[in-house]
Amino acid sequence: MDYLKELSIQYTDQTILVLDQKKLPFEEEWVTCNTPEEMVALIKDLSIRGAPLIGVGAMLMLAKLCTAKKNKEDVHSALQLLKNSRPTAVNLMNYLQILEDILNHDTKWQQTMVEKIYLLLEQEKVKSQKMSALGSSLINDQDRVLTHCNSGSLATIGEGTALGSIKHAFKQQKDIFVWVDETRPLLQGARLTAWELEQINCPYKLICDNMSASLMAQKKIDKIFVGADRIALNGDFANKIGTYSLAVLAYHHKIPFYVVAPTSTIDQNLSNGEGIPIEHRNSQEVCGVYTGSTEVNWAEPTTPCYNPAFDITPSNLVTGWIFDTGIYNQQQIKEGIQLCGLL
Amino acid sequence: MDYLKELSIQYTDQTILVLDQKKLPFEEEWVTCNTPEEMVALIKDLSIRGAPLIGVGAMLMLAKLCTAKKNKEDVHSALQLLKNSRPTAVNLMNYLQILEDILNHDTKWQQTMVEKIYLLLEQEKVKSQKMSALGSSLINDQDRVLTHCNSGSLATIGEGTALGSIKHAFKQQKDIFVWVDETRPLLQGARLTAWELEQINCPYKLICDNMSASLMAQKKIDKIFVGADRIALNGDFANKIGTYSLAVLAYHHKIPFYVVAPTSTIDQNLSNGEGIPIEHRNSQEVCGVYTGSTEVNWAEPTTPCYNPAFDITPSNLVTGWIFDTGIYNQQQIKEGIQLCGLL
Repeated sequence: MDYLKELSIQYTDQTILVLDQKKLPFEEEWVTCNTPEEMVALIKDLSIRGAPLIGVGAMLMLAKLCTAKKNKEDVHSALQLLKNSRPTAVNLMNYLQILEDILNHDTKWQQTMVEKIYLLLEQEKVKSQKMSALGSSLINDQDRVLTHCNSGSLATIGEGTALGSIKHAFKQQKDIFVWVDETRPLLQGARLTAWELEQINCPYKLICDNMSASLMAQKKIDKIFVGADRIALNGDFANKIGTYSLAVLAYHHKIPFYVVAPTSTIDQNLSNGEGIPIEHRNSQEVCGVYTGSTEVNWAEPTTPCYNPAFDITPSNLVTGWIFDTGIYNQQQIKEGIQLCGLL
Repeated sequence: MDYLKELSIQYTDQTILVLDQKKLPFEEEWVTCNTPEEMVALIKDLSIRGAPLIGVGAMLMLAKLCTAKKNKEDVHSALQLLKNSRPTAVNLMNYLQILEDILNHDTKWQQTMVEKIYLLLEQEKVKSQKMSALGSSLINDQDRVLTHCNSGSLATIGEGTALGSIKHAFKQQKDIFVWVDETRPLLQGARLTAWELEQINCPYKLICDNMSASLMAQKKIDKIFVGADRIALNGDFANKIGTYSLAVLAYHHKIPFYVVAPTSTIDQNLSNGEGIPIEHRNSQEVCGVYTGSTEVNWAEPTTPCYNPAFDITPSNLVTGWIFDTGIYNQQQIKEGIQLCGLL
């Protein structure tokens, strides 16, 4: 593979192009990312986002540095910088750990790292397809599926995870309907998931996050599909804030609740979700919105806020985990995760 | 009573002044409301809002018309217009039914209506104080209380209902902390409740609606207080969208969940919540925000949306109902409501 041409990230001849997701859906602006510092900035401000895609972006930057024959010290410091860009999604750490091992122990590290990166990217694409197909197998005609945040092609280098499964089902001509929750504070549902569903003309409606319980009570939601940013060995997982709320509501209303993720989302070092670090972001995100061209506040910027970007869903609330390796229920998940291996 | 001077509505010498709540917290703009049509417009666009306050606004308009010696036909058509301004909150219908009976059967209807309106307003203020005091009795030092939407002085002609209880506790020197959820789509929590708490320097933090479950899991919420727009005879109630979600989450986490309302919120014609009409509002509210001076969209205005303004919480999820007449638990609520009488 000497190039990558995905919906929101492209790599050709040492040039990394990133679709600025902050500006979607109104502007489709591609920015060139030249340095590790620029990549970190794009990750931190969510111009590039989604647990798998963050890892891809970081790897491409390292591929670029290695291909440009940067010295070991520079690559090492870039790797550390990238690893610390955001704390919750573990795909980034998992990928970079593999690459750091090569950097530290392989004499031909430049070539080996580039080869490994290309291999991991190819594998990620294959896994993405497998996951989507497996997830889709759980979606039937007439299903009204709710999804949270964005876990489609904008979050991965494939169809996606949770949204990938939904899109896959729709492309298989299944007669489905999607409830898209807006996903405050950064509105990835309203801005990105709605945009992806529009691209394929899949029927959907946008709701505010606080409306889903009422839909569940009215029996208007048949299944819930969400992605993940980090999965512990017992199946507990971190995902976009609001996921845990949906899991509890689904449990109360006896609605199947599925999490879809590539195996790169598994943290082999955590026995349960308690140890997952949760990123807290600035108050500004809660006091208003920035839509690319316009910024608007509805509360004073000095308003005290609490703004965790993720929450933890315990495994007892999950109906099934869909990895590229298979679908696991609560009885199977621990063994399933062991079988997955690190990547 | 020949005048009313409240936080968000004032009436002197046949002049009704309304604080435009759409523009809070950044602008405190008072508008004069001259006609029933203007009052309906202010109610429909939530410039004046909150179940009790909507009823007060409508009554003041009728008081103005009666004092100005308008003829019976004009007053009757104004009454119908006001009654149909918003469908869910029942305080409006309850008040206007009493006044319609006077209009239809009392020969001195102009004078009797004005006297009745002043009496109902006086009673509403007294009830508001009683409710706040009763609600406050359930709040202890160190309590971290969550509230939804705005149910304070901006929603009533007193301290408020749910927020009134919280403010009352704080004014009694109780050492409390308030979690304010923003309450999408119209952000009454972020814009109005935060503003009211700022006025009295009560400690609080603003969160997005999808963050409360995670706080509950972390045992950072001790009690939840919400208002109501209509309460059925069995204790089921309608309130701002998102209330039912909080009730289910509170139930799952074993957190006490209280509803606070004046007896004018009771619908004596409904045996349970199923028959409560739910207002559905336009998609524009979900696709963006309007903050008084600025309008911003983050999804195309053509995006298909679902936007119910209220949801129904069944009585089995409620720990206690706080009326001006007392506090009732699940065993007491049916009898408690019977005792309340119509107003």
